Amino acid sequence: MSDLELSTTIQMKVRFHECDPLQIVWHGNYFKYFEEGREDFCQKHGISYLDAKKNNFATPIVKTECEHKLPLKHSDEFEVETSFINAEAAKMIFHYKIVSSGKLICTGRTTQVFTDKNSELVLNNPPFFLDWKKKMGLIK
Amino acid sequence: MSDLELSTTIQMKVRFHECDPLQIVWHGNYFKYFEEGREDFCQKHGISYLDAKKNNFATPIVKTECEHKLPLKHSDEFEVETSFINAEAAKMIFHYKIVSSGKLICTGRTTQVFTDKNSELVLNNPPFFLDWKKKMGLIK
Amino acid sequence: MSDLELSTTIQMKVRFHECDPLQIVWHGNYFKYFEEGREDFCQKHGISYLDAKKNNFATPIVKTECEHKLPLKHSDEFEVETSFINAEAAKMIFHYKIVSSGKLICTGRTTQVFTDKNSELVLNNPPFFLDWKKKMGLIK
Amino acid sequence: MSDLELSTTIQMKVRFHECDPLQIVWHGNYFKYFEEGREDFCQKHGISYLDAKKNNFATPIVKTECEHKLPLKHSDEFEVETSFINAEAAKMIFHYKIVSSGKLICTGRTTQVFTDKNSELVLNNPPFFLDWKKKMGLIK
Repeated sequence: MSDLELSTTIQMKVRFHECDPLQIVWHGNYFKYFEEGREDFCQKHGISYLDAKKNNFATPIVKTECEHKLPLKHSDEFEVETSFINAEAAKMIFHYKIVSSGKLICTGRTTQVFTDKNSELVLNNPPFFLDWKKKMGLIK
Repeated sequence: MSDLELSTTIQMKVRFHECDPLQIVWHGNYFKYFEEGREDFCQKHGISYLDAKKNNFATPIVKTECEHKLPLKHSDEFEVETSFINAEAAKMIFHYKIVSSGKLICTGRTTQVFTDKNSELVLNNPPFFLDWKKKMGLIK
Repeated sequence: MSDLELSTTIQMKVRFHECDPLQIVWHGNYFKYFEEGREDFCQKHGISYLDAKKNNFATPIVKTECEHKLPLKHSDEFEVETSFINAEAAKMIFHYKIVSSGKLICTGRTTQVFTDKNSELVLNNPPFFLDWKKKMGLIK
Repeated sequence: MSDLELSTTIQMKVRFHECDPLQIVWHGNYFKYFEEGREDFCQKHGISYLDAKKNNFATPIVKTECEHKLPLKHSDEFEVETSFINAEAAKMIFHYKIVSSGKLICTGRTTQVFTDKNSELVLNNPPFFLDWKKKMGLIK
């Protein structure tokens, strides 16, 4: 496993309808922000669910987690830092960190697996994914 | 055109995350309730977007409207009355009325057209839709 | 009434979770984009629901409309043009136009009224709103 | 700690707009279902965020988790089983299980803490919460 950590950061702003009657971002909406971070990461680093699809794999999310430290409010600006966790298992794991005005808002994590065209779980890393890892210097 | 009016009614309850920082249902969420009403209507009266699909038609929504009289709040129970508007043009028009505790909350309307497998607008009512109208006694 | 038209434009991009099983933006989500346009307009032109609130008025949305021409898909980039419609009645009316790659996607409109601290409808334009209109050259 | 486990079950149905372009419920939407389960539990067992509020406490969510086994699709009917986890710490922990047609769809967990009127974290169980636990037979 490599020490190298790949990460990207995007700037976002809380939308009015993302907030709940407690005047804060509704907790489930943080997964929208994580998704934006993940999509941006995948676009910048050349690996997306469309690449998987082209190779007849799907990458369903099997686990999501979020730990909240501070709430975000309407109009708050924040950044989402998305990092790829270089696991050995046939999984795509991303870690997220949301920061606003220098304060940690929350951290999160999503885990995706690979399924083949019969929707069966794939236990070994698909070739296209290993190729990508090599290209990124994550494995030799 | 027939005088007969087809309508169905469903019971719903406001979910917490559907409310905004003003403590009322966010205005765009009423279209979720209308959709629930429309789906229920279509299921009960045997006409759905899947029927259209089976006949190689899609039924995209081309117009949505909502007039708000009173707000709904978290946990409010309400009913959505969905009525089919029997237009002569090749359109599916539904009218909605949301009532809670005997008070009118809002009315709305959605207009759908038919497109064929090339995504081209269809100007005449598709046979499967005319068959349905006949079956429902809306046309002779 | 002035001929002058105030408008602002923002750039947006379709998020994955805003799309439905038909692979297009779910129709109700366009009101999210309109809201982003309206909020940007209000911030740039110095009039927001917080200004209203400071003056003890609320500005509930009483009518929403959207006419769809073409669908947006995941990752599509688009712009929302928000224009203030200078009505004489005590209303805030905004018109929206969404354009992507030079093509008209949809147009929309929202109508807001003023209510006082007892949640009663206000029939005359509140002073703070008339002041804003004068400042913007919309009335003399 | 008591062996007794409190739980409630509600019936739900997947709404069209809760599904994503992959034709399955978008992963973040499961937290909406969990919330419905939690609210139902709290209503049936006489403990809600409003009770907390009345006692000058808020109960912010500090952690959310979901493990997905199988996807839900449009119109799928399912049940949400919500169980209260009787922790000793000053926390409200709920566990969720979603089952459809006898198959396990996902499990989840949310953790809430208590904050006082100054939004400060409360380290000991608030009296109203201990009273509720006694009433429910969870502590002596």
